[in-house]
Amino acid sequence: MQFNKVTDSVVAELRTLLGDANVLIDEEKIEMYSKDEVSDKLWEKMPEVVVKPENAQQVSEVVKLANRELIPITPRGAGSGLAAGAVPLQGGIVLSLEKMNQILDVDTENLFMVCEPGVTTGDVQKTAKEHGLLYAGDPCSADSSFIGGNVATNAGGNKAVKYGVTSRHIYGLEIVMPDGEIVTFGGKNVKDVTGYDIVHLMVGSEGTLGIVTKVWLKLMPLPKYVADLLIPFADMQTAIKVVPKIMTAGIIPTCLEFMDSLSIKSAEMYLNKKLPYGDAGAYVICEVDGTSETQVQDDYETIGKLALENGALEVFVADNMSTQERIWKSRKCYAEAIRMISPVYCMEDIVVPVSNIPKAIEAIERIAAKYECKIPSAGHAGDGNIHCTIMREDRDDHAWHELKYAVLDELYEEVYALGGNLSGEHGIGAKRAQAMDKHMTDAQRKVLVTIKKALDPNGIMNPGKVLVG
Amino acid sequence: MQFNKVTDSVVAELRTLLGDANVLIDEEKIEMYSKDEVSDKLWEKMPEVVVKPENAQQVSEVVKLANRELIPITPRGAGSGLAAGAVPLQGGIVLSLEKMNQILDVDTENLFMVCEPGVTTGDVQKTAKEHGLLYAGDPCSADSSFIGGNVATNAGGNKAVKYGVTSRHIYGLEIVMPDGEIVTFGGKNVKDVTGYDIVHLMVGSEGTLGIVTKVWLKLMPLPKYVADLLIPFADMQTAIKVVPKIMTAGIIPTCLEFMDSLSIKSAEMYLNKKLPYGDAGAYVICEVDGTSETQVQDDYETIGKLALENGALEVFVADNMSTQERIWKSRKCYAEAIRMISPVYCMEDIVVPVSNIPKAIEAIERIAAKYECKIPSAGHAGDGNIHCTIMREDRDDHAWHELKYAVLDELYEEVYALGGNLSGEHGIGAKRAQAMDKHMTDAQRKVLVTIKKALDPNGIMNPGKVLVG
Repeated sequence: MQFNKVTDSVVAELRTLLGDANVLIDEEKIEMYSKDEVSDKLWEKMPEVVVKPENAQQVSEVVKLANRELIPITPRGAGSGLAAGAVPLQGGIVLSLEKMNQILDVDTENLFMVCEPGVTTGDVQKTAKEHGLLYAGDPCSADSSFIGGNVATNAGGNKAVKYGVTSRHIYGLEIVMPDGEIVTFGGKNVKDVTGYDIVHLMVGSEGTLGIVTKVWLKLMPLPKYVADLLIPFADMQTAIKVVPKIMTAGIIPTCLEFMDSLSIKSAEMYLNKKLPYGDAGAYVICEVDGTSETQVQDDYETIGKLALENGALEVFVADNMSTQERIWKSRKCYAEAIRMISPVYCMEDIVVPVSNIPKAIEAIERIAAKYECKIPSAGHAGDGNIHCTIMREDRDDHAWHELKYAVLDELYEEVYALGGNLSGEHGIGAKRAQAMDKHMTDAQRKVLVTIKKALDPNGIMNPGKVLVG
Repeated sequence: MQFNKVTDSVVAELRTLLGDANVLIDEEKIEMYSKDEVSDKLWEKMPEVVVKPENAQQVSEVVKLANRELIPITPRGAGSGLAAGAVPLQGGIVLSLEKMNQILDVDTENLFMVCEPGVTTGDVQKTAKEHGLLYAGDPCSADSSFIGGNVATNAGGNKAVKYGVTSRHIYGLEIVMPDGEIVTFGGKNVKDVTGYDIVHLMVGSEGTLGIVTKVWLKLMPLPKYVADLLIPFADMQTAIKVVPKIMTAGIIPTCLEFMDSLSIKSAEMYLNKKLPYGDAGAYVICEVDGTSETQVQDDYETIGKLALENGALEVFVADNMSTQERIWKSRKCYAEAIRMISPVYCMEDIVVPVSNIPKAIEAIERIAAKYECKIPSAGHAGDGNIHCTIMREDRDDHAWHELKYAVLDELYEEVYALGGNLSGEHGIGAKRAQAMDKHMTDAQRKVLVTIKKALDPNGIMNPGKVLVG
């Protein structure tokens, strides 16, 4: 696709549309919009201009201008993505949703929240809780990520085992389409088959089919009782083999996470304190919740018993908030801990059918040994979703480049052989677009490209993301 | 769209592709494929030919032929639809999935079932149960409907309050696209953001974007304890006002249904027996389930108490299978009972936000009084989904026609004024395509039409359904 540059007259027009304060071109001000959390120069690029619209109408005007002038437009949330999805790799306009950050409605009769895309996931969770309700989307980055970014990537997170990924909670979207039209699909009807399910086509499309400007989120009653289990194991294989057993024990845990020994050690270093059984080979972390104390107790006792019968060293039960927070801190700091130890890294997000989780972990360990590198793993075991991170450590540019691609090639082959896929929740962005393209069939590619071309004939919406440019 | 007729040479080619036994043109054999459960001559039409492919390859060959010859193709499941979605209103080929009726895999490790579209929903439920698992999709027509039809219409049903509609349980589809390509999206990964969510674009698209030839269904642990409550009320308004109260009481019931007095009376006539409190003004039927007996008891006690505090005449608790079946029989026979009393009828399927359920019922009662007709209502109150049926009784053709359209116009206006929509689970088909078109914005229509035209440029896939032809 041949795009045009952002000219002075385009900048002037943007200033007229949005006001001077909402149009940035100074290098020091726009530098932070040139990257996300991928941590790789390859996936960084300075925008030509950054705009901060304050409402859907302004988003629409910017998109119309970009479409008319054939200028690429990259929508951006909090920039906490891990796939370079919000990086303007083909230049043009970065459209930041940071100023559209209002919660518009908390409807306690219908259990809905309506908000703008720039509200942080953490604020959504907190506001729901203040009303005695649960927003069940819970990515580890909740404190910083925007709900719009969660929608764009169909973020998963910790509670997806029981409550599902972000798409499960999204019942309506206002979208600015690539031609600038503002359109709403869905809303507060919990069942609705009136027309195609455009809402869920948009969820996970990473800003390549339109820009979300309003979100209808389903809330649910806050579970009255919650308990968390921290279960250390002597080694990773023993730990991970318990996961499919828990998932077929007749209970749906709210969360079912794991951390390998490298991740535990990294968390200890990052948090600067000893964790219980910090020298364990692996942790399994499990949460159960419900409306009845007895049920929650029954459930965690069933899981605890199963774990002990299958090689757990110990089962710690946390049924109060402060102990629960301590358990989760070690798991939720995974990304930050790794970043501290190896500021350059390559974080992957593979997913396999749950029964193949032990084989996937075996494959990661085999690859790490073969290439003599560190690949700490942690993640959402109950969903078959593994975050495994290749650490650069002290390798030079060339060695790191070689290592990274060799490991990724081999890892992806193993994942596909196990019936898995590239990304469970972080998305494809630019980082995985080539790999996805390689593993798609022609028939799959044709469907995706047909939809992209039909809705965005000029290809201005986040080009090069999801589909190769 | 200008289509061609099915010629002798097309029939001959179909016979070569599928074998003589799988290609029907005899009037008495194809007559049953000319209608569904809508019960209105307006929505009946004889197919030119009926084909019964036995595998995806044969479906693909038929679609390629239809696409080449510009012949409309109407995919058909069990014909239990209520929107004329499976009726070949523009002639051409009816493609029945009845011979693709195999359950291919019950995966008790990953909790998945893989099956062909022609398996009945009842068989899916039964097979899951035999493995100690639950398929939570539960339309009232489960005994006859095909799972492929459930996918095509995104069927709702009784357990959607807690477990969601059909789309929630669908993780993968094999689809024959309108160009005849066979393509698979999704599978046994419970999280997957690798590319656009084509699976959920297809779910609910009523065979207008492709033909589903294989389905990956998510199963879950069978709840150990289930209890049903039958709660009679003196009048409908008292009954329905309890629904939003239950939905905000901190519990997620599995089912939350209602029946008005006309529906109760119809069920008594159809079942030919007295129901408890058969002269009640309304029933609320509620199911709770879970892994713990105490939790289930706590939940139904909370709901029962709430109901009694808000005007319930009585609360019957059924915690064994035979009493539970008796309760559900009265609710599940709604369609058959009405059909027996008034063989010609117009069954609607409106949906509103749950808090507006009392106002929607008020509107239905007001309209019935205004036009002096019977409109029995029942449905999925916990989802805001109301089945209300205009009965023809002994009106002549002209009077029935006048009544039907007057009532529908007024009903739809009321529904939209309440933030609702035309169809919660039965679909748009041909029956509601004009009404949907009338209520869509230009921007919404443009998105839907763009996707339809892009994927089916010749418009052969189920023309005139969902979108006006």
